[in-house]
Amino acid sequence: MKSYRKEMWFNIPDRRGLVNITQEVQSCIQESGITEGLVLVNAMHITASVFINDDEHGLHQDYEVWLEKLAPHAPTSQYLHNRTGEDNADAHMKRQIMGREVTVAITAGELDFGTWEQIFYFEFDGRRKKRVLIKVIGE
Amino acid sequence: MKSYRKEMWFNIPDRRGLVNITQEVQSCIQESGITEGLVLVNAMHITASVFINDDEHGLHQDYEVWLEKLAPHAPTSQYLHNRTGEDNADAHMKRQIMGREVTVAITAGELDFGTWEQIFYFEFDGRRKKRVLIKVIGE
Amino acid sequence: MKSYRKEMWFNIPDRRGLVNITQEVQSCIQESGITEGLVLVNAMHITASVFINDDEHGLHQDYEVWLEKLAPHAPTSQYLHNRTGEDNADAHMKRQIMGREVTVAITAGELDFGTWEQIFYFEFDGRRKKRVLIKVIGE
Repeated sequence: MKSYRKEMWFNIPDRRGLVNITQEVQSCIQESGITEGLVLVNAMHITASVFINDDEHGLHQDYEVWLEKLAPHAPTSQYLHNRTGEDNADAHMKRQIMGREVTVAITAGELDFGTWEQIFYFEFDGRRKKRVLIKVIGE
Repeated sequence: MKSYRKEMWFNIPDRRGLVNITQEVQSCIQESGITEGLVLVNAMHITASVFINDDEHGLHQDYEVWLEKLAPHAPTSQYLHNRTGEDNADAHMKRQIMGREVTVAITAGELDFGTWEQIFYFEFDGRRKKRVLIKVIGE
Repeated sequence: MKSYRKEMWFNIPDRRGLVNITQEVQSCIQESGITEGLVLVNAMHITASVFINDDEHGLHQDYEVWLEKLAPHAPTSQYLHNRTGEDNADAHMKRQIMGREVTVAITAGELDFGTWEQIFYFEFDGRRKKRVLIKVIGE
């Protein structure tokens, strides 16, 4: 069994933002030399998500509106967590809906994806350096 | 390390619907000859989920009602994504709540499951052919 | 490829409750002798979650309030599932938001974690014995 590890860094200029990282993950698989196995891609922070969905700009704005409805940022005083001096409690909730990680099959050296599947980093508390872990195992 | 791959196809006659795929996944494990490892089961579409829960009909109807409350289909004009000509933006949200994939342990050639765990395909935008990927790795 | 399996048991005295299990998972990795690979940690019950987030007490209370808003326990008659004699339909919903499982990379014999990542068991229908599965694969 072979394994491979890489970190990807982000510094999203706003509180929230979304980056397509599919090509970077595919490059890691090539670099790993692993042709059959699994790749785990996870946020290493608890206020960000890695998820798989469509690369369509309108949908991304819809997610933003929808998540704000399910877990509103304001008023920040509604969350006990924000009494620690943070204002990011909502980011911890949004991340649970969108998920921490994805596990993707690798077949014949490629991400084994359906037509529209793309991997995204979703930042919910940006304006600082944060990272994603890519771990590949297989042969 | 051994690996195995199979696609399962669905054509749900309605917009939404739910199928228990536990037996099919177990059959794949047998076919793979892998007795210790992991099986990844994921929707290859971005408007469907694979998840693990109870095979109880009332609960499945409860999920339907609950998801419709959290991410309503109508009015379709509330979503920017639907300006692309689609009417399935809600399906992209429902799928995020229920999840894209499950990873299950394989022990002694079987799905290593608790008493009530069952694997389901949950369609949120059906009336067309769609598929699930089953990838097994291990020994 | 090596593999390792362990069950952890819980008996949460209340309906809901949260336990940090990071150290136990790390101990399993040590016991497994696996230094590069993946660890899967999943609830073996369909009314509980395993998830990764912050070990901050206020946040845990925020999750409790938030999940109760998104999937209220009462009135129990609002859920068809509860006609089976159960009163835990809401627990099946809460668990879908928080997730069934986490998959974590193992690097150099350790959980490959960001600074604040901690693994939790989240009980949504306690007052009885329930368990979590830890499965490690790698080399």
